[in-house]
Order: sequence, then C-alpha cells, then structure tokens
Amino acid sequence: MKKFVNDPKQFVPDMLKGLALANPDTLTYDPKANLIVRADAPRDDKVSIVQGSGSGHEPAHVMVVGKGMLDAACPGDVFAAPPTDYVIEAARRVNSPKGVLLLVNNYTGDKMAFEMAEEFAEAEGITVATLFIDDDVAVKDSTYTIGRRGVAGNFFVIKAVGAAAEAGADLDEVVRVGKKVNSVTRTMGVALTACTPPAKGSPLFELGDDEIEVGVGIHGEPGRARQKIVPADEIVDILLDPIVSDLPFSDGDEVALMVNGLGGTPISELYLLYGIAHEKLVAQGITPVRSYVGEYCTSLDMAGASITLVKLDDEVKELLAAPAEIPIRTF
Amino acid sequence: MKKFVNDPKQFVPDMLKGLALANPDTLTYDPKANLIVRADAPRDDKVSIVQGSGSGHEPAHVMVVGKGMLDAACPGDVFAAPPTDYVIEAARRVNSPKGVLLLVNNYTGDKMAFEMAEEFAEAEGITVATLFIDDDVAVKDSTYTIGRRGVAGNFFVIKAVGAAAEAGADLDEVVRVGKKVNSVTRTMGVALTACTPPAKGSPLFELGDDEIEVGVGIHGEPGRARQKIVPADEIVDILLDPIVSDLPFSDGDEVALMVNGLGGTPISELYLLYGIAHEKLVAQGITPVRSYVGEYCTSLDMAGASITLVKLDDEVKELLAAPAEIPIRTF
Repeated sequence: MKKFVNDPKQFVPDMLKGLALANPDTLTYDPKANLIVRADAPRDDKVSIVQGSGSGHEPAHVMVVGKGMLDAACPGDVFAAPPTDYVIEAARRVNSPKGVLLLVNNYTGDKMAFEMAEEFAEAEGITVATLFIDDDVAVKDSTYTIGRRGVAGNFFVIKAVGAAAEAGADLDEVVRVGKKVNSVTRTMGVALTACTPPAKGSPLFELGDDEIEVGVGIHGEPGRARQKIVPADEIVDILLDPIVSDLPFSDGDEVALMVNGLGGTPISELYLLYGIAHEKLVAQGITPVRSYVGEYCTSLDMAGASITLVKLDDEVKELLAAPAEIPIRTF
Repeated sequence: MKKFVNDPKQFVPDMLKGLALANPDTLTYDPKANLIVRADAPRDDKVSIVQGSGSGHEPAHVMVVGKGMLDAACPGDVFAAPPTDYVIEAARRVNSPKGVLLLVNNYTGDKMAFEMAEEFAEAEGITVATLFIDDDVAVKDSTYTIGRRGVAGNFFVIKAVGAAAEAGADLDEVVRVGKKVNSVTRTMGVALTACTPPAKGSPLFELGDDEIEVGVGIHGEPGRARQKIVPADEIVDILLDPIVSDLPFSDGDEVALMVNGLGGTPISELYLLYGIAHEKLVAQGITPVRSYVGEYCTSLDMAGASITLVKLDDEVKELLAAPAEIPIRTF
C-alpha cells in the first residue's frame, strides 16, 4: 500500500484534524464523537442539517459542512457507519428549536445507527426527522443495502435542504424539499480500479488489467456487470441509458448534470466524460442547465466516475442556485 | 491503460470541449488554436493574463480561466508546450490597450514558444510582457529545464496578477506583483506512482511497489532521490524542510500553505498531510493563515502531492484574498 498515512487506524481522525486546522474560522472538530461542526451552529433561526456515513467518500460529507450546506457531519471509520452514540451527540451539538434533520444514505448499517439515534434524541426532547437518500439506479438491493444505495446524488439533497434551511423553512418543509430532490435524482457509476482502505492495506476487490465494474457501489460493492474496458463514448452510454430510462428523463426536460470522480481519476477525464454526456443528452432533447464536474462522493483512491442527473423545475433550480460556502477552497 | 478516453490523440480537445460545454456563460473554446478564453475578454480596462503550458496538469491552467484569474489559457498537447502560433493567437484574442501578460512555467520548450510568440505579437503592435515561474526547490536544473521548474506555486502568481489586473493596475505593476509573489513561493513534491499519458498508454516511468520519488517533477521527471515509502509524518519533513530552509521561512512569518494533489491521490490524504504540515510549521513559529488543499497542478493520474509555502505580507495577503470566479463548481 502506498498512501499518505501515519497509523492506518488513525486515518479518519488525522484527516479531520487537518480539515479543522485548514478551516479555523468556520469549522470545529470534536475528536470524542468524531464530529465536524459549523462554528456558528446551532442557529435558533434555522433547521440544523446533519449527514453521517462511513468515511472514505470525501469530500462527502465532512468537507461540505458550511453555510447553505451541512451544520455537522458525523463520519464513521472508513466505510463503516458512525456509532449511534456519535449520531446522538451530533444531534445534541446542533440542537435547534426549529429541529434537526438527519440525512442518511441508504445503507443498512447507517440506517440502523440513525434510526436508533433518532429515537434516543427524541427521548431527550430534540425534534428530529430522518431522510434516506437512494439515487443509485445500478442495482435494486446490494451487499450492504435493502433497496437502492445512496451515492453522489446525495450532494443535491444536501444542497437543497441546506438552502431551504438557510431560508428559514420549518422542519416539515425542509423534509419535503429533500424528499422531492431525492425523488428526481438518479446516479450510476463505473470503477476502473479497486480502492485500498488504509487499515486493510490491499485492494478491496480484484479487477483485471482491462476490466471495469459497471454500476459499482461507493464501497466497491458489485454492480451490474464486469466487462472489458471500452472507449469513453460507450462508457457514457452504459451509465446514461439506465439513468435516463429510470425516472424517466425525457424530451423537454431541463437537468443538472454531474460527472463525479471516484477519487483516483483526474479532472481532465471527468470533463471529457462531461462533454460526451452533455451532447448525448442534448441529442435526446434533454438540456443540462447546471453542470457539476469534480469529486463529490468518492471511494478512497478508486479510479472511476459516476454520472448523476437531477430533473429541474423552478423550485429545484432556485434551491441549487442558492449561495453556499464550504471548506474546499478553489482559489 | 484504463482511462476515460476516446481517441487518445484527441484527449486534450475532447477535454476542452467538455470544459466549454460545462461553462457556456463564462468560457469560449477556440478549437483551431486550442484556446479557452473568458467570454468577456478582452476588457479595455484591464491587463489580460494568459497562461500556457502542456496539458495534463488540470485544473492548471484551462480550468482557472475566469474573473480575477486568467483571461485565456493556451494549452499544448499532454506534457508538450503549445505551438508558438497558438500563443500568438492567444495574445491577439485577448489584446487589450493595457497590454497582455504571458505567464510561463520555466520549462525550456515553453520558454522558447513564449519568447518567440512575444516577439511576433509585439511586431503586430500588441503590448506584451512575459513572466517565468520557478517555485520548485527540488532540483537546480532538470530534464526539461535550465534553472528551477515551475509547479503548483504557479497558482499563487496567477491569483496575484489576476487580482492586480482586475483592480486596474498597469502592465508594469502587474509584472512587479507577479515577480514578487514568485520570489516568495516555494514548492516540493513527491510521487507515489507514475502517471500514464493517454497517447503513450503505459506508465511514464517505473516505481517499485514500495518506492516513492522525492522531488518529482510534474511530468514525472526525476527529483532528488528515490526511497522506500515512509509514514506521512516523515514525508512531510522530507518536503517541508527543503522548502523552509530555501527562502528561508523563519520564526514570525505568516504563510499560505498549499497541499496539492498530483491527480490520483484522494482529498482525504491531502487533508491528513495538511494537518501534519500545519503543526510542524507552527512548531517553528511559522503561522499558516491561508490554507489551500486540493488539486491545483496535477500530473495526469499520478498519486502524490506537493507542498507549497508563500511568505505573506499585507500586499500579498490582500491579493490572495481578492474575489475570483473559476469554472470548477464546488457547490
């Protein structure tokens, strides 16, 4: 294994410490419960938004804590759900009179931790709602999931509920907005290589020198098929066709189009994929009016990408265009 | 080779097409001269800033064209200087009464192309200045360089001259600012893996399963030493000590600290490195007051990172804090 790491078991805390040191004015790090929290949270005038999940998907979700996005992130160890205690502590830490929304990608381990945390938090008098995200069209059930998995489309749900919360919406309204965006968001991914968890020290699965895993999960779970690598143009078809036909998206639709890198793929290749996907959509009468190219939800150092489409109406457009501030400084 | 690519020879144009499709309101793409140009360039009231270099270093430089940054980028093919004709066309395209500044990382091929272009452009009546960037402390001369190489610190020069130009500074003043920032910027990098150019289809150099290349160049050029991989803590020492002792940076200094990914390294590892570097600097009385963690200047899919320090005074702080807008959307 060649990684930048000290003690592999301390990978997550060491990363979170660096994140907090790089953002002293906006973030605080609570090492006891592994939390990254907005410096100004909780605010009495807004619903607090919390997302938890296993680590290894950065920037999701610890690096999207900020104005218009999350109030706190509650990560577990690499590819492991956060302990229930940590989720309860997150709800306490950002408890607001307007309530707390817990966002959870639909994996069985995370679901259990968050459902238990919701019960305990409510017993303490905290107003809590939980929202599950399941945008991945690749498989119906999966290694760690009953029902569809939550993957990169999660970003759009965070952005939408974050915008609604900043605008002062109450908890029910924030939940409505989040469910709506989840219901119009579809994703599928492909792996060119496996990923290597620091504490394991070796690739999580084997993939031949000329093979790709179509519909891969963000923990390296199997997808729809393993096949020989093909040109980018064909890969885009393989990802886009199941996405478009699933909702379905159709002639006249306006969409947000995301090409998300899985961690080891350079941004040059992501823009190349974006161009192909954009033109294929336009040829079907579907118009990308918002573009997202980069890393949003990764799988450690996996080479690969996912494509996400969000069907837009005026409300969703406005939510996605709302201002936000996150720790990732680009200039 | 496993990459997202159609015809490997069309990798750069296909990427640029995607970039322009993703940013229709702010960027235009000229396929004849391989240019990415701000939609509002040239502006009569500001010096135009152009950077050219080989491709394969994205987001440098085609993805930092925007307000407060570049007016145009003039990329060559992967790891190849742009043809002189393309540089001249870039100068024509953004010709402003206030002049055009050409930024060039110090590589012999780029230097020749830009010096010739400067002569031709001046002969056409365009006011041009050229500024060479050479922030890499790893080696004195290198495979493609007489003198030091220009690497990720380049970002800070772009940011500073971009800010000065937006504020209305004349060409001499913009050049002064750029030279000043270059003179207080130092970088060193390390590779964990080689990179694979699309048209070559195989890794550019060989690196053993447990080896790292210390002081690597952004085209995979040899650095100072090849050694066994060590914990992140030691890697930070190996990079930071030569940087700190070179300027030198010393007790009482305020700095910008950048941890730049080389393309295949996930952002989790970059934040882990940031935390270590930040604490080591503070222990020496050097205070990071601006942080940059992510990909700024890559080497295709190479796993690895570089560290950059910029010595700050009030003027440089103000330039780096100026507003800017680039195509990379993060939320």
